[in-house]
Amino acid sequence: MIIKKITDLTDEEKTTLINRNKMNLENIYPIVREILDNVKNNGDSALKEYTKKFDKVDIDDFKVHKEEIEKAYNRIDYKIIEAIEKAHDNIKSFHEIQFKNLKEWEINKNGIKAGQIIRPIEKAGCYVPGGRAFYPSTVLMTVVPAKVAGVEKVVVVSPPNGTEGNPATLVASDIAKADEIYKIGGAQAIGALAYGTETIPKVDIIVGPGNIFVTAAKMMVYGNNVAIDFPAGPSEVLIICDEKANNDYVAIDFLAQAEHDPNSSCIITTTSKEKAEAIKNKIMELINKNIKRKEIINSSLKNSAILYGNLDECINLSNEYAPEHLEIITENPREVLKYIKNAGSIFLGSYSPVPVGDYASGTNHVLPTSRCAKMYSGLSVDTFIKKPTVQELTKEGLESISDIVITLAEAEGLYNHAESVKKRLI
Amino acid sequence: MIIKKITDLTDEEKTTLINRNKMNLENIYPIVREILDNVKNNGDSALKEYTKKFDKVDIDDFKVHKEEIEKAYNRIDYKIIEAIEKAHDNIKSFHEIQFKNLKEWEINKNGIKAGQIIRPIEKAGCYVPGGRAFYPSTVLMTVVPAKVAGVEKVVVVSPPNGTEGNPATLVASDIAKADEIYKIGGAQAIGALAYGTETIPKVDIIVGPGNIFVTAAKMMVYGNNVAIDFPAGPSEVLIICDEKANNDYVAIDFLAQAEHDPNSSCIITTTSKEKAEAIKNKIMELINKNIKRKEIINSSLKNSAILYGNLDECINLSNEYAPEHLEIITENPREVLKYIKNAGSIFLGSYSPVPVGDYASGTNHVLPTSRCAKMYSGLSVDTFIKKPTVQELTKEGLESISDIVITLAEAEGLYNHAESVKKRLI
Repeated sequence: MIIKKITDLTDEEKTTLINRNKMNLENIYPIVREILDNVKNNGDSALKEYTKKFDKVDIDDFKVHKEEIEKAYNRIDYKIIEAIEKAHDNIKSFHEIQFKNLKEWEINKNGIKAGQIIRPIEKAGCYVPGGRAFYPSTVLMTVVPAKVAGVEKVVVVSPPNGTEGNPATLVASDIAKADEIYKIGGAQAIGALAYGTETIPKVDIIVGPGNIFVTAAKMMVYGNNVAIDFPAGPSEVLIICDEKANNDYVAIDFLAQAEHDPNSSCIITTTSKEKAEAIKNKIMELINKNIKRKEIINSSLKNSAILYGNLDECINLSNEYAPEHLEIITENPREVLKYIKNAGSIFLGSYSPVPVGDYASGTNHVLPTSRCAKMYSGLSVDTFIKKPTVQELTKEGLESISDIVITLAEAEGLYNHAESVKKRLI
Repeated sequence: MIIKKITDLTDEEKTTLINRNKMNLENIYPIVREILDNVKNNGDSALKEYTKKFDKVDIDDFKVHKEEIEKAYNRIDYKIIEAIEKAHDNIKSFHEIQFKNLKEWEINKNGIKAGQIIRPIEKAGCYVPGGRAFYPSTVLMTVVPAKVAGVEKVVVVSPPNGTEGNPATLVASDIAKADEIYKIGGAQAIGALAYGTETIPKVDIIVGPGNIFVTAAKMMVYGNNVAIDFPAGPSEVLIICDEKANNDYVAIDFLAQAEHDPNSSCIITTTSKEKAEAIKNKIMELINKNIKRKEIINSSLKNSAILYGNLDECINLSNEYAPEHLEIITENPREVLKYIKNAGSIFLGSYSPVPVGDYASGTNHVLPTSRCAKMYSGLSVDTFIKKPTVQELTKEGLESISDIVITLAEAEGLYNHAESVKKRLI
């Protein structure tokens, strides 16, 4: 982990920092291509083959039925069920307000009505990572915005846990009102959602995070009659903090991010060398104090840095970095926010650590990583809707713009385009 | 061109119809890969090589300078300049209202503020097809929404016309206030925008239609630090019309679409066999009357069909087809609109032919084709913005949801996530 003045970073250091975690998916494309083609051609039997090979289990029926869901409720602590329900309610409320802020509209001027309507995507597939770990929160974050958007069929896929689905994943899917759940993971699950099999329906969009095989498969099916959210990389945070920020808070937030994945990146930008060193000491003190998930955290440090400079330099670096999560712990975080150009989700002040957005405040945690925040937003109701434009002209309206259409159509050599207007004005 | 009862379509006929124009991009991926890699590694010198090879011209400086733009104004008819200006004003007005309908919002409940802000993408590249043909309208449709969204740098690329840029393309770029224009086309232009060269800046998103090499290149650079709008295929229309629709209008709209490209698709769904035959006769009559672009039109007929059934069947077929352009010429088109699920842009009534949206009414003409309207919207201000979520909690707000975060984080094994909340509530 480097600790350095922002303006002293060499070009190479800066490039390495900014281009963290460039996944080299191309190496695994041939393997993934084979899996996808096999699923496309052989459907369920290919899924069985890969589930035996990768998940080490024979599954005859990938579909999770009602009885298995009911059983799942008895297999987990009531406290967890309750937490999933409360998180669900908050996430649903947030996304409902998001939906209400999407407006259909129409203007009517000189005989020309023009506007936009909102239509949900019909079928969505939500990939939820699983296997040994389980992420009921990711079920909520992918299923809820799709349901709020009005998607007719929301399908959850997640790797099996033994021959059964992970109980927390099933309970979360049930609470979020997913329409169908299948015990299938990996690139083969993406193939199933993209092409459809005897039991799993083809969907129109596939969302949700996964390992590099899942990400490569999403990239490869993209555009072939299926949309995806965005390529997912390891989780990351950038924290902009000033002298007054509480070192304990900054240090634990850094570590909370670092525990995600051995390739996670955590960047702190702060306003003085002394502050940078004080934060670093606090981080090291916590790491040395028998912290949980220590190995993962130590591995993440290679992608991490503590940098200092004036507040403008901190902000500019953050904008270039385009972090998935951005914490602003400064005296006036709303003032800093004005200058933020690129970030997936932004956490202001001392009492807004990233985990509140991961689980409970209602905002979505499926966010663009690896600099994708420069062009993408996180998952939202928008992900699951289209906004077709609509227009209706009167004869007078058509007449009023006919010269533009006829001149440009003829200039572009599209004579029948011009004709379609002329014929109506005879 | 088939003319058939909707319910009599065989599964194979229906599949062929719906899956029109599946482009087989995979065959050309190796060629495009080579071009992209060459541009990535050799920058401008690779661009010169390909421009000589494909456009048969030596270009030393790809950048279009002020003098060349000024000259362009003198090279085209004043009537065309005026039409471009008027079209620009209408397109700008429409997209400005679109922008105003995107709202930043925040709720504040129990010490938890949460909402969304709007931020433009910083740099956008607009691909405008060229060479022998030229499309000033496409310049407007790609540059204007980016500028309205607040994109800082909007770059137009378009193939050279001899050693100069096409004058109409240059004039349209100037009127739309594009920041930079380059005379470069094909897959090499996409590579230049994706990776940057000595003269052409790397952008964050590439939009606009192109031939299959351009489309393949867009698909291949997608996700590598650059976003794209969507894969573009040949243009298409579906017309839903009832007995009262004017056969002349329906026939010319069918032909106006068919003249686009030898692979265009035109589908008419109507409410009786007699109407279907009357429309077919009208189309044939016009084709036989020395129509312009006859060869292209005749080729398009292979992807085209006139189908009949009751209005529900017409609507259902349209929803499955998910057309780029949808005309609804029925007694009550707004009633039909309620049931439309998938379409790029929708044209209601007798006086709203597709060409008004292509050029002049203000709506965008860069639209999802080849069934992509099931999951994508056309180009809009949304294409060029991100909506990061923002949250700010008070200590009490954090306290109120701490149990959810701690329970779920610990259930998912992310102990330092839980810790980041606990530390703040001591």
